[in-house]
Amino acid sequence: MMYEVKDPAYEIKVRQSFDKQAVMTSIGASLLSVAPGEVAIVLPFQSDLTQQNGFLHAGILATILDSACGYSAFTLMPPNAEVLSIEFKINLMSPAIGEKLIAKAHVVRAGRTVTVCDATGFMEQGDSTKAVAKMTATMMTVMDMKKEPL
Amino acid sequence: MMYEVKDPAYEIKVRQSFDKQAVMTSIGASLLSVAPGEVAIVLPFQSDLTQQNGFLHAGILATILDSACGYSAFTLMPPNAEVLSIEFKINLMSPAIGEKLIAKAHVVRAGRTVTVCDATGFMEQGDSTKAVAKMTATMMTVMDMKKEPL
Amino acid sequence: MMYEVKDPAYEIKVRQSFDKQAVMTSIGASLLSVAPGEVAIVLPFQSDLTQQNGFLHAGILATILDSACGYSAFTLMPPNAEVLSIEFKINLMSPAIGEKLIAKAHVVRAGRTVTVCDATGFMEQGDSTKAVAKMTATMMTVMDMKKEPL
Amino acid sequence: MMYEVKDPAYEIKVRQSFDKQAVMTSIGASLLSVAPGEVAIVLPFQSDLTQQNGFLHAGILATILDSACGYSAFTLMPPNAEVLSIEFKINLMSPAIGEKLIAKAHVVRAGRTVTVCDATGFMEQGDSTKAVAKMTATMMTVMDMKKEPL
Repeated sequence: MMYEVKDPAYEIKVRQSFDKQAVMTSIGASLLSVAPGEVAIVLPFQSDLTQQNGFLHAGILATILDSACGYSAFTLMPPNAEVLSIEFKINLMSPAIGEKLIAKAHVVRAGRTVTVCDATGFMEQGDSTKAVAKMTATMMTVMDMKKEPL
Repeated sequence: MMYEVKDPAYEIKVRQSFDKQAVMTSIGASLLSVAPGEVAIVLPFQSDLTQQNGFLHAGILATILDSACGYSAFTLMPPNAEVLSIEFKINLMSPAIGEKLIAKAHVVRAGRTVTVCDATGFMEQGDSTKAVAKMTATMMTVMDMKKEPL
Repeated sequence: MMYEVKDPAYEIKVRQSFDKQAVMTSIGASLLSVAPGEVAIVLPFQSDLTQQNGFLHAGILATILDSACGYSAFTLMPPNAEVLSIEFKINLMSPAIGEKLIAKAHVVRAGRTVTVCDATGFMEQGDSTKAVAKMTATMMTVMDMKKEPL
Repeated sequence: MMYEVKDPAYEIKVRQSFDKQAVMTSIGASLLSVAPGEVAIVLPFQSDLTQQNGFLHAGILATILDSACGYSAFTLMPPNAEVLSIEFKINLMSPAIGEKLIAKAHVVRAGRTVTVCDATGFMEQGDSTKAVAKMTATMMTVMDMKKEPL
């Protein structure tokens, strides 16, 4: 897919914003890659992030996939813009067990105000990889956070 | 709304399952109330759960609202059933800033296999309360987790 | 719920726009009520709108609920604004069989740019009423349709 | 993507079920292709299916994409199964204007009970094609429609 970059500083912008997401540090997530319209995040499996069956909690999957979507949208936004999630939907497809979660997000459509993104969450265990969750997210380009942003 | 309870032990079942959700302890969430078809969870605001603007991360809201939905569904399930999230959608409506998040979930429709739930997340700050997020979740009644659950 | 009306001509505006939705006439739907933040639409059951089991097709339910959501949002928008659907999610809860479908929508949150709406579709048959579908929709306030609207 | 076919009669099954969807005939839609895990439907643009701006109504897009998703799921279901939509989410990305709508759906994950599908709606106009809508749908494998299906 071809993406139009409006801010040549997109990568540093994403990395600086990611570093400000305290929850990413708290749960041990890190940026794996940043490219125009495409961002990947990795989260090592941790038993203190699980639900009652020992799988990563759906909300933790959502946390990682939402950030991956938001930053993939952010790579294509103009200078001075900020990004906020309007809404997202996530399907949980298989139990999230394994060594680590890789979330790969990309922009489906970058509009003037609204950007639509897709992400898939993969659990890796040794040589095997399994898609465990799938998100579609709607992101807002916010030019002035001091005004009501949404 | 009138709900049919199929397992008189619904409350202890919910509380035991909640206690097994390690992520709830990790982020400091607790059950506020459990009633047929209705569950509330509280999460004190913590700066280490925030996104880049200092708001609670959308995924953390999703974590709390998903658990509230799942357990509201679970209150109406038969003995020996387990509950899994099939999918959910969340709208982020206002910045999640305040002293604590209260998630209130209820069952919209409890079917044989599929239960639909709604939840709203409220941020409380002193005397004021603001709805900051809204979820609709689809939950599965799982009778045998050893089989492929979804 | 209290709603702030920004355009006193909201009702005539909704009725005129509804009349321009050719699909509403084509399938036989009509406006049942228009109030600030709340719109209802009725669709008599027709066998030529059904899926393979003889139920109203999920997409027809979505058509009616989406219009009800869009117009409930539109009642609260400022003069000169137009309304477009950004996205919606619908849960199908029971087979849509009966004499007529009533869709009731209301605004959950009216923001500067984005309005979140909920709608429920009820099938009526004689004296009985059953909720068959539930939608959450995200609507955009468009001030200039000549620019890229989303 | 590799898909496992459980019913060699999948294509005739899909075509027969599609023919029973009265709404497809009513609005002029037809099956474009049926393959394991993948179905495409075409709808010529008609002004009597439009919303207030003259675009195809979002619900009509949803109707076509939902059927495409449902039938892509149905191709992979066992003999004697039926398919019902549990829920879907659709993002409207661009005004749906053009000569015809092509909906392409594929299965993302076929589970024992639940199948997750993706579909994109493209508007074609002469030589140009534009993605106008994107759906993720959750489908149910129903083995006995006489029981409560969901």
